[in-house]
Amino acid sequence: PRNAIHLYEGDLPDNLELGSTIAIDTETMGLNPHRDRLCLVQISSGDGQAHLVQFVPEHLGGRGYGHCPNLKALLQDSSVTKLMHFARFDVAVLQHYLGITLNSIICTKIAARLVYTFTDKHGLAYLSRELLGIDMSKQQQSSDWGSPTLTEDQLQYAASDVLHLHALWNKLEAMLIREGRRDLAQSCYDFLPARAKLDLLGYDVSDIFAHR
Amino acid sequence: PRNAIHLYEGDLPDNLELGSTIAIDTETMGLNPHRDRLCLVQISSGDGQAHLVQFVPEHLGGRGYGHCPNLKALLQDSSVTKLMHFARFDVAVLQHYLGITLNSIICTKIAARLVYTFTDKHGLAYLSRELLGIDMSKQQQSSDWGSPTLTEDQLQYAASDVLHLHALWNKLEAMLIREGRRDLAQSCYDFLPARAKLDLLGYDVSDIFAHR
Ligand SMILES: Nc1ncnc2c1ncn2[C@@H]1O[C@H](COP(=O)(O)O)[C@@H](OP(=O)(O)O)[C@H]1O
Ligand SMILES: Nc1ncnc2c1ncn2[C@@H]1O[C@H](COP(=O)(O)O)[C@@H](OP(=O)(O)O)[C@H]1O
Repeated sequence: PRNAIHLYEGDLPDNLELGSTIAIDTETMGLNPHRDRLCLVQISSGDGQAHLVQFVPEHLGGRGYGHCPNLKALLQDSSVTKLMHFARFDVAVLQHYLGITLNSIICTKIAARLVYTFTDKHGLAYLSRELLGIDMSKQQQSSDWGSPTLTEDQLQYAASDVLHLHALWNKLEAMLIREGRRDLAQSCYDFLPARAKLDLLGYDVSDIFAHR
Repeated sequence: PRNAIHLYEGDLPDNLELGSTIAIDTETMGLNPHRDRLCLVQISSGDGQAHLVQFVPEHLGGRGYGHCPNLKALLQDSSVTKLMHFARFDVAVLQHYLGITLNSIICTKIAARLVYTFTDKHGLAYLSRELLGIDMSKQQQSSDWGSPTLTEDQLQYAASDVLHLHALWNKLEAMLIREGRRDLAQSCYDFLPARAKLDLLGYDVSDIFAHR
């Protein structure tokens, strides 16, 4: 099959070569990182292969978050660009559960907000349809990602979130250059690690930059 | 008098030595940089002297914004730290009216938000009272700063906004270090030039980092 899905538990395998730009997404039990645990990390180098790392808690017989040196090394390697959609959330989750700080991030949501100004739709499904002609089913988005046995539909969904991100990025990057907003986008990406830290501290509700 | 106020029109004088950290504030006709013009820029090196640059439009016989090489050079000098309270606004105004990008910014409002978490009061008057025991009158804050002849009260008010900022900064910086949030604060300051650009583009209303 052109698109292959590889599922691992607790860490990436040794010696996986993923290149200089990796697409990343996460699935969690919900939208509050303090409450809702990280269940899955999806990674693709953009070659049609999706690498899925599932985290199973120790009390369910899994390895938990404590033994993922390969994944941590990859995520902390600042020579590797991490491509995400709405990175703000995934970065906070990864920081909270793996205890790492990510750098060299780029985000298709921020890029879309800076160039797709003629619409207020900047969701991944919308952008994939508009820019790539790809229809993504978002049906599994709010399914039970904490299940130790993920369904075939869940795996397909999780993979689809990273498989086309490089192609989407290429389109958005070209538009950023066209509109003269690439530097501004870069300044926003550069702030994402701090934005995620602030979110974990509660500054998602009271904006640190607000007057009141 | 211990505190001296120097008023200039259109630019700073030549050869003014202001050191490596300058306090800056601005007064405008209102809170919308696209609508409300920049009237006054206040600067202090923290030595009790306030340097006030008033901008009088050309149709009123003034020099307008076109001839302020000394002020622009100072503001664009990245070896000079620019200390402001709620820098987000002043940076946007200066960027818009003087056509310059400011760097090396620090902001007492952001610092206060990161350490004065036990209150939601982070106004300059409140912080000056709490941390320095200084009572600032905020009476002139919403006066007519576009008047070609500023009153003595206006000049005193404008000066007071920069005269104590270094002292306030020292207190807040010590608290940032105490609470282990100095790096996080720095990441926020670093984002301020982009935050100001985004504000001028209209991303003050629809947050660039928001999910929707
Ligand atoms: N308040 C919120 N509402 C919806 N999705 C949110 C969210 N905060 C973070 N997200 C994340 O943003 C992603 C959806 O982004 P978009 O709506 O732009 O396509 C979701 O990821 P998944 O698609 O991996 O579940 C979800 O986890
Ligand atoms: N929405 C807003 N409401 C009030 N002040 C605002 C504002 N946006 C920007 N400001 C600026 O923030 C400063 C007040 O900050 P604070 O309330 O923290 O003391 C004011 O400067 P001035 O004091 O120079 O007039 C004002 O110009």
